[in-house]
Amino acid sequence: PSPAYRALVRVQDLTPEKADQLIWLRARIHTSRAKGKQCFLVLRQQQFNVQALVAVGDCASKQMVKFAANITKESIVDVEALVRKVEQKIESCSQQDVELHIERIFVISQAEPRLPLQLDDAVRPDGEGEEEGRATVNQDTKLDNRVIDLRTTTSQAIFRLQSGVCQLFRDTLTKKGFVEIQTPKIISAASEGGANVFTVSYFKTSAYLAQSPQLYKQMCICADFDKVFCVGPVFRAEDSNTHRHLTEFVGLDIELAFNYHYHEVIDSITDTMVQIFKGLRDNFQTEIQTVNKQFPSEPFKFLEPTLRLEYTEAVAMLREAGVEMGDEDDLSPQNVTYNCICTHFSQYDTDFYVLDKYPLAVRPFYTMPDPNNPKYSNSYDMFMRGEEILSGAQRIHNAQLLTERAIHHQIDLEKIKAYIDSFRYGAPPHGGGGIGLERVCMLYLGLHNVRQTSMFPRDPKRLTP
Amino acid sequence: PSPAYRALVRVQDLTPEKADQLIWLRARIHTSRAKGKQCFLVLRQQQFNVQALVAVGDCASKQMVKFAANITKESIVDVEALVRKVEQKIESCSQQDVELHIERIFVISQAEPRLPLQLDDAVRPDGEGEEEGRATVNQDTKLDNRVIDLRTTTSQAIFRLQSGVCQLFRDTLTKKGFVEIQTPKIISAASEGGANVFTVSYFKTSAYLAQSPQLYKQMCICADFDKVFCVGPVFRAEDSNTHRHLTEFVGLDIELAFNYHYHEVIDSITDTMVQIFKGLRDNFQTEIQTVNKQFPSEPFKFLEPTLRLEYTEAVAMLREAGVEMGDEDDLSPQNVTYNCICTHFSQYDTDFYVLDKYPLAVRPFYTMPDPNNPKYSNSYDMFMRGEEILSGAQRIHNAQLLTERAIHHQIDLEKIKAYIDSFRYGAPPHGGGGIGLERVCMLYLGLHNVRQTSMFPRDPKRLTP
Repeated sequence: PSPAYRALVRVQDLTPEKADQLIWLRARIHTSRAKGKQCFLVLRQQQFNVQALVAVGDCASKQMVKFAANITKESIVDVEALVRKVEQKIESCSQQDVELHIERIFVISQAEPRLPLQLDDAVRPDGEGEEEGRATVNQDTKLDNRVIDLRTTTSQAIFRLQSGVCQLFRDTLTKKGFVEIQTPKIISAASEGGANVFTVSYFKTSAYLAQSPQLYKQMCICADFDKVFCVGPVFRAEDSNTHRHLTEFVGLDIELAFNYHYHEVIDSITDTMVQIFKGLRDNFQTEIQTVNKQFPSEPFKFLEPTLRLEYTEAVAMLREAGVEMGDEDDLSPQNVTYNCICTHFSQYDTDFYVLDKYPLAVRPFYTMPDPNNPKYSNSYDMFMRGEEILSGAQRIHNAQLLTERAIHHQIDLEKIKAYIDSFRYGAPPHGGGGIGLERVCMLYLGLHNVRQTSMFPRDPKRLTP
Repeated sequence: PSPAYRALVRVQDLTPEKADQLIWLRARIHTSRAKGKQCFLVLRQQQFNVQALVAVGDCASKQMVKFAANITKESIVDVEALVRKVEQKIESCSQQDVELHIERIFVISQAEPRLPLQLDDAVRPDGEGEEEGRATVNQDTKLDNRVIDLRTTTSQAIFRLQSGVCQLFRDTLTKKGFVEIQTPKIISAASEGGANVFTVSYFKTSAYLAQSPQLYKQMCICADFDKVFCVGPVFRAEDSNTHRHLTEFVGLDIELAFNYHYHEVIDSITDTMVQIFKGLRDNFQTEIQTVNKQFPSEPFKFLEPTLRLEYTEAVAMLREAGVEMGDEDDLSPQNVTYNCICTHFSQYDTDFYVLDKYPLAVRPFYTMPDPNNPKYSNSYDMFMRGEEILSGAQRIHNAQLLTERAIHHQIDLEKIKAYIDSFRYGAPPHGGGGIGLERVCMLYLGLHNVRQTSMFPRDPKRLTP
């Protein structure tokens, strides 16, 4: 057949049912080993691979074996090959029951001979093979050569799962009647106050990059969209070089009007999270197992309904555990508190919980005070494996109270005029929260650095690739 | 029952089946008209509304009628009311067969008495009611008061349809095996060359806002993701004040490896567009009709398979129509050409078509030249109702050729090193395109300004709200 119509088989479809068929395949050379009159290749497509053989005989000349042996690793080739069942399972490949006997081979795209990192090294668990002198690859080398690193089975699995988180988030909310919105990232006023905001040159003036879609999703609630969500980049000019901070990350944002109590909002968000956890557990086991091979972790545990504790309860627990803190102090992720909470909450056998009723003083100006105790607020954080993944609250929906709180926080009213004005023409009680996508993926998989779950991470020291 | 458990009925569910039931409802006061011992209200929830009545009698005092009559328009109220079937359809409301007899009314959130614009004025078709001296609202007033303007039936319909476009785009591609990716918006090199790029202060250095996810989605192809899409903001520092330009818009981006011919990519994209058109036609008729009431337009027409014409054919047609242009000139949207093409292509009875094989000279540096004619390229634009909505191409997947073309375009190689290096370790032939979400919505609905389909538009003169 004309090459234009040649059907290409996928590696994952190479099963014993295809035995003795002559097929065409496009794949990368994952490994190559010449041995006398034979050349053994492993051909790879994403997370799938298969053993292949070029041997001097009826269909291959000595020259062809030599040619095949000289193709550089990571090159992309088209091969015509006979599928053969094997007697003994090939443990090192995803396709364990067959191998390919190559009759023709063409190079589609040739890789340079020196790879900046070896894929096998990049997926080796820490400590494994140390005695044999086998290398692992440090994170900066991986990130500097992200295009190669993303080809590993671990990276392929992480980002397929990440794609799944976004889809589950949106599908769950769409079923609940939420509308997806698109909010501007170039804004004239810092949404979360003046600190930690990037400045953009905007024609003859300057503007900011949105630290969250906060003001805009609230404006959509004032505009009668009732329940909204958005998925998009958020920007924080924070000079934090930690395992959990990025200067640009993906926010999964929710905002909704409620009828009688802001716990309706908490319930809506926790149920969304639970649907995501269930979807991952039920549909992404292959990806979870793949990541676990390199980074072992316990399966993610959650309860239904989600555990909700009040901030004061958490403080009491921490004090019991010997942590000194005032009633209105914030939980500091830098110190022992998170781990304490995590350990203490482990009595509940869940990796996901809500802390409700934070001190008003530690929350943004638009947070609704607790009507029963003005020191506290109708706000909450959510945690996965002891680390914060969501911050949220009931918002103030009265322009006058909002103005007072903005003044109290020394925010320039002129800059947020459009926002405050949104509440002058009837605004329903509402609340919401913002989830960090990379953190959710990191913590669900039990990983230890948010850069592993950001394709091209940005931090104070990294702007490339 | 306790207020916390009081069930609220939705306006759209107020049908004759509910007749003679006593219900609770939360809604806005859309209009209010007092008349002797009665006060007629229209209560609104999003695009639905119902007539309601407070009348002096058994369940309402004179004071209560006065109280109701004084509630400002756009305030949010809770009412307890008896549902009554009406003899004569109420043509002015979405719920035509019932009205509400209010027994109790509470104000949840009061609107200020002077609205910056009237919703009825904002949805009035141009020219209608002029003789009666009825106002329409100009676009800047609408945008300055976007939170009110978004409450209109027209806006509600536009942005629900926009949400649908995103969902159809993603669902179609997910079914085709595409993976969703998240690409950085803060980048160290201008993705489409140095012009028209916004600069960001980035700690002690400076960076750019991505003009497209171009380089990153290609890097994902080099990283074996095979077929990827992303939905996110793109930024153009272009001082263009036209009906179709924004400085920030939402890009629906596609990139995929292909086997033998870049037309596989075109087919994949056009099929995705066709699925979107079908999904809108089949699931968003209410929204389409609502928008049409204010902005009449013909139903959007498309063919299967999608019409594809070569650039040279289009040029020949234009010349036939009297337009003077060289073989390698770009189509200029500012001049008559678009309309000519539009008119000429109307012989095909479609509002959607592809122009293939653009002159190489007018395309970005990463565009694959036509192997049969180096003056042309394997690139294409897609058009809806005569205006461009997508630009795309086969991309160069060879580092050496890419370097040559970058030099030819006088691009600083050092700045795009990571990008060019991605092609050194085996890269499959691939192509894709970027679609402007706001343009798709504008043109599908037959609207005339892209600001109508951007919730909070950004242009050289507008940074707020």
